[in-house]
Amino acid sequence: MADAVKEFNDVFPVLAQELLDHLRSLNIPKNAIEWFDRSMRHNVLGGKMNRGLTVAATLRILKGDKDLSEEEIFKANLLGWCIEWLQAFFLVSDDIMDNSKTRRGLPCWYRVDGVGMVAINDAFILESAIYFFLKKHFKKDSYYVDLLELFHETTYQTELGQLLDLITAPEDNVDLTKFSVEKHKFIVIYKTAYYSFYLPVALAMHMAGIKDEAAFKQAETILIPLGEYFQVQDDYLDCYGDPKTIGKIGTDIEDNKCSWLINQAIAKANAEQRKVLDENYGKRDEKNVAAVKEIFKQLDVEGLFKAYEEDSYNRLMGLIEKLDHPLLHKDVFITFMKRIYKRTK
Amino acid sequence: MADAVKEFNDVFPVLAQELLDHLRSLNIPKNAIEWFDRSMRHNVLGGKMNRGLTVAATLRILKGDKDLSEEEIFKANLLGWCIEWLQAFFLVSDDIMDNSKTRRGLPCWYRVDGVGMVAINDAFILESAIYFFLKKHFKKDSYYVDLLELFHETTYQTELGQLLDLITAPEDNVDLTKFSVEKHKFIVIYKTAYYSFYLPVALAMHMAGIKDEAAFKQAETILIPLGEYFQVQDDYLDCYGDPKTIGKIGTDIEDNKCSWLINQAIAKANAEQRKVLDENYGKRDEKNVAAVKEIFKQLDVEGLFKAYEEDSYNRLMGLIEKLDHPLLHKDVFITFMKRIYKRTK
Repeated sequence: MADAVKEFNDVFPVLAQELLDHLRSLNIPKNAIEWFDRSMRHNVLGGKMNRGLTVAATLRILKGDKDLSEEEIFKANLLGWCIEWLQAFFLVSDDIMDNSKTRRGLPCWYRVDGVGMVAINDAFILESAIYFFLKKHFKKDSYYVDLLELFHETTYQTELGQLLDLITAPEDNVDLTKFSVEKHKFIVIYKTAYYSFYLPVALAMHMAGIKDEAAFKQAETILIPLGEYFQVQDDYLDCYGDPKTIGKIGTDIEDNKCSWLINQAIAKANAEQRKVLDENYGKRDEKNVAAVKEIFKQLDVEGLFKAYEEDSYNRLMGLIEKLDHPLLHKDVFITFMKRIYKRTK
Repeated sequence: MADAVKEFNDVFPVLAQELLDHLRSLNIPKNAIEWFDRSMRHNVLGGKMNRGLTVAATLRILKGDKDLSEEEIFKANLLGWCIEWLQAFFLVSDDIMDNSKTRRGLPCWYRVDGVGMVAINDAFILESAIYFFLKKHFKKDSYYVDLLELFHETTYQTELGQLLDLITAPEDNVDLTKFSVEKHKFIVIYKTAYYSFYLPVALAMHMAGIKDEAAFKQAETILIPLGEYFQVQDDYLDCYGDPKTIGKIGTDIEDNKCSWLINQAIAKANAEQRKVLDENYGKRDEKNVAAVKEIFKQLDVEGLFKAYEEDSYNRLMGLIEKLDHPLLHKDVFITFMKRIYKRTK
């Protein structure tokens, strides 16, 4: 596994060099090349790289480790990096939209001295790099168009999830009547599950030569609920996780986030409890946060989560068990499941 | 020509409907569909549509009007609308980055009540629509991948031009040592010429069945300088055009724009004149603007433009004359030239 991480990390400098060499060939002035380079390093690097690592890991399961050439591993890792570039595109812009302060222990890119709103265009450039890499390395492959379409569609799905999230839970206008379990589900699936769970596996499936639409459909029916479950865990850990373990102090309540917890509470609250939620959700003061948490306690939202977690595990393992497509190995999904079930960070 | 405009305009509602129908099929909540619809109408409509109209106009010249089916005209206009969607993606975000107030007689989208930074994600969605349309209408065409790559590459080129523009001429930090004739040329070509001049013609060439790389290269060698000339005219008209005719009062001097005029002036100014430019460029006060214009007058920047205009015309007509690719009709380029030579708006 350490080797897999090293193999993955070794691909970044190659890709960075390709972009910079191309820019030099266009005779774009030096100050722009330096800016580009700084934006790329600030925004693409420094994450956990789970999504990026998943492409090669999945391909290893699908094709068998010993049957993979060095070139195949390189290309799978390259696709993994394309997801990391895609994520950088999303995060740079999300941070502006959410008015965030820090990301991965650094100031958000738009808050770096001298950057400001230029970050919007830098985000676009991060997205464009994906198609530069795909053309350079996959143009001759039979699944080249499939890769292009997959990135387009996943990007669009994520943007639609982000749209619904932004207009449902604006930070400056708390209105819990806009929230609902259904909206939460749509936001989670579109904003997170497609690009974080379906995309890396689907990319590996294309590389493994899988052409059958039905195989992709089966993978999707497991990976999307799996991604939904993962995001619900995230919402849970934001409130109930150990800050030392998860590495941050959750602020979903203060930020008026359309989280799983508040939606469960809304669905179960009586009129009096609802009033407390309406009056205290999305406010910065400790007292407001404590009042919301007290209602969560009264409604046993934590217990609801534990039940949801058990139910999700059983349901998803059942789905995996029933997988019958000859080209899909159950291990792809079981590996995922093992990594996230009852996670504390 | 009136028919051509009507044919073009008639395609918009069809495309808008396709997007909205698709959203409904995803069960995305109604408030998000309404938002999407409002953003699309606010941002895609209301321009001069020159770029959009050029695709079908070019295809008519390349294939001959009578040989075009209704479906071909529809698809050419659809590609024209993809350029308008692309432009909407650029303009929504440019307006945020430039801190602009109005666009096409309306408030900029991010300044519309309740929109704000959500506009960044709306811009992304406008871009995603392009690939939705291309897949839906061109997937079976032999040139589908060429269309995808052309849009990717043109988008990237425009973003690189925008990057250089933003870091060379930030509104809040005037530094004329950053300017140069070479940087101006790069900005103009990358930020404007590729998507406004090369893209519509190259799209029509793909639809006309042209596969020869050399034909695209020849078209590019004329369209890029033509686009450069067009943008230089824009810079000239901003300062010397009649506000009644061009429909706005130019503010390039106040806005610290890296315009053709200031770069010519910098190249020709003596130390004393340069000092006046350094002290007065990029400031809001009338007196500062007048001081800059006085230096322009001393250096006969207007005369330099007239000479540039004549020279560009002769050089470009010479290039068109020498065109020898059997699949390229000179009329494509002559039509463009006629429309822009000595334009006053």
